Amino acid sequence: MGKRIGKRTIAYDTPAVIRSWATAAGRKEARGKLAEQYDFILNHNQFGEKSWERAEQKMQQYALELALEKAGLQASQLDYFLGGDLLNQIIATSFTARAAGAPYFGLYGACSSLAEGMILGACLLDGGFGRMAAVCTSSHHDAAERQLRYPTEMGVQRTLTAQWTVTGSGAYILDKGHGQWQITQAVPGKIIDRGISNSSDMGSAMAAAAVDTITAWLQDTDNLDGVDYIVTGDLGKIGYEICKRQLLEQGYDVNGKYYDCGMQIYHEEDQDVHAGGSGCGCSAVVMGAKFLPQMAAQPHCRLLFVGTGALLSPLTVQQGETIPGIAHGVLIEYKQEG
Amino acid sequence: MGKRIGKRTIAYDTPAVIRSWATAAGRKEARGKLAEQYDFILNHNQFGEKSWERAEQKMQQYALELALEKAGLQASQLDYFLGGDLLNQIIATSFTARAAGAPYFGLYGACSSLAEGMILGACLLDGGFGRMAAVCTSSHHDAAERQLRYPTEMGVQRTLTAQWTVTGSGAYILDKGHGQWQITQAVPGKIIDRGISNSSDMGSAMAAAAVDTITAWLQDTDNLDGVDYIVTGDLGKIGYEICKRQLLEQGYDVNGKYYDCGMQIYHEEDQDVHAGGSGCGCSAVVMGAKFLPQMAAQPHCRLLFVGTGALLSPLTVQQGETIPGIAHGVLIEYKQEG
Repeated sequence: MGKRIGKRTIAYDTPAVIRSWATAAGRKEARGKLAEQYDFILNHNQFGEKSWERAEQKMQQYALELALEKAGLQASQLDYFLGGDLLNQIIATSFTARAAGAPYFGLYGACSSLAEGMILGACLLDGGFGRMAAVCTSSHHDAAERQLRYPTEMGVQRTLTAQWTVTGSGAYILDKGHGQWQITQAVPGKIIDRGISNSSDMGSAMAAAAVDTITAWLQDTDNLDGVDYIVTGDLGKIGYEICKRQLLEQGYDVNGKYYDCGMQIYHEEDQDVHAGGSGCGCSAVVMGAKFLPQMAAQPHCRLLFVGTGALLSPLTVQQGETIPGIAHGVLIEYKQEG
Repeated sequence: MGKRIGKRTIAYDTPAVIRSWATAAGRKEARGKLAEQYDFILNHNQFGEKSWERAEQKMQQYALELALEKAGLQASQLDYFLGGDLLNQIIATSFTARAAGAPYFGLYGACSSLAEGMILGACLLDGGFGRMAAVCTSSHHDAAERQLRYPTEMGVQRTLTAQWTVTGSGAYILDKGHGQWQITQAVPGKIIDRGISNSSDMGSAMAAAAVDTITAWLQDTDNLDGVDYIVTGDLGKIGYEICKRQLLEQGYDVNGKYYDCGMQIYHEEDQDVHAGGSGCGCSAVVMGAKFLPQMAAQPHCRLLFVGTGALLSPLTVQQGETIPGIAHGVLIEYKQEG
């Protein structure tokens, strides 16, 4: 049974344990900052498939299978499979769910889907509705680009505010046992819309949502000192600066503990990604390849992971609508065994 | 705290009460079988807006506001808003969530989204994570048609297996109190794919998923006699016949208690809808306008609602993929007060 702290924060009674995880990344990502940290690298953007969409699906399925293997589990042991991706009808995740054969909750939170899935997965386990859940998300640069912006082959010149959709996937296995990484709290996101309608400036569209979720958690728990890391999903360097400044304006100095996954993947000087990485795969690979392992450097470490999503619809942008943002937060705690 | 019955069924300890609901429908729907039963009717397919997509969003928002009003609630009292629709990036629901301002879990289960939201909403309340949740879904014929099949204005000749996407929306307010309509059990769906790739034959693509979920519940509970109605979401008459026959082949004679929402909306003889209604709005309006009220005719009535979804992606169909189906089930019980 969960309980609520303050206005919006969920405190789990029996925290879900992150029992294992696996990350997959593309070749451009493999030339970046976390080159050695991914579990596997795609040999090619098409990954032996006829299309980028199929490549994305196969990559996500491999990530799930590897995460299960690390935990010594079969897909048939999963009570639930939760996840989503950027493709219309979240088809990469749905086909992975077809292969897994587990009861499936399809989610759409754009790039916040991993955090959304972690919140709901942890609720299902803590609430007594099951013992084991997988949460998977993915994105593929070429598939996302042609769906959301311009034909990928056109190689359109990108603005300096633009982010690069990460080709990557992460799979996380949650269970109801003992373990070092635990999801102990959550802050479900609200839609926040500050009137951005430029589909090449997602960081600005999402920053206000991240600020809303982080301040909601800080107000509910009054525990800025007790958290070691605050990690947003994919604000990129423009959104990161906005978020940091707005937090400071509200009296929260997060200097030295605040990071953004979108700034952890590529080398800024020579990978030509402008404002950084983005996409459902961005936080999915950075959390697994960097932050979760890094938490183990301390005996006890607390990390607030805030998955950020811009619910960008090319159609409604063309119709004059602005881009709604959302940010879902989970508090992950690492405790050394023994 | 929930518990599990058998392999897949959830039994809620504190069932969520369906405290109020509201339905909205288009003009074609208003000329159909449930003409007098909808809470409100759109004056025009564009509903005073510049586009069908905006009309869908406005319709869903009106449905939510009316359901809240019936319950004497404000949107600010909602702990969670869950929902989805057929538009890419579930934008009708996301903009409604923006207006509502409540913590938001965006879902994508195609036409099964209402049942998916009811399962997760009931889990959140029973698990102790909140007291009040709204579940909303919608679809708009003209918006769905141009996104998923052909330009709407083209008026392409439809096959006899085709269904007509319902212009409609339903909003359901769940709370953790006392009330007559309760969600007492749930059966989360699995992806079932029988190899259908014809985007004008959704009933066949979804029927096997409905059979899978219904038999899972019957095997877990062994209670065919104890259920008064089994209601699928939008199989239409072709999927309905397949589902009924396959259940019989497995030894379950559902004759006299099995209905499909897709066959309850339009007059078959003169509304030219071929196999029936479909879309997220289909079960959303039929459950609220027909079946929930009808349950009150008996002192105690049990209805298994099985929302059916075809996760149809025009892109992956063009790439040669088949259409995965899913069906989420909830057991709704009505008990007369006193």
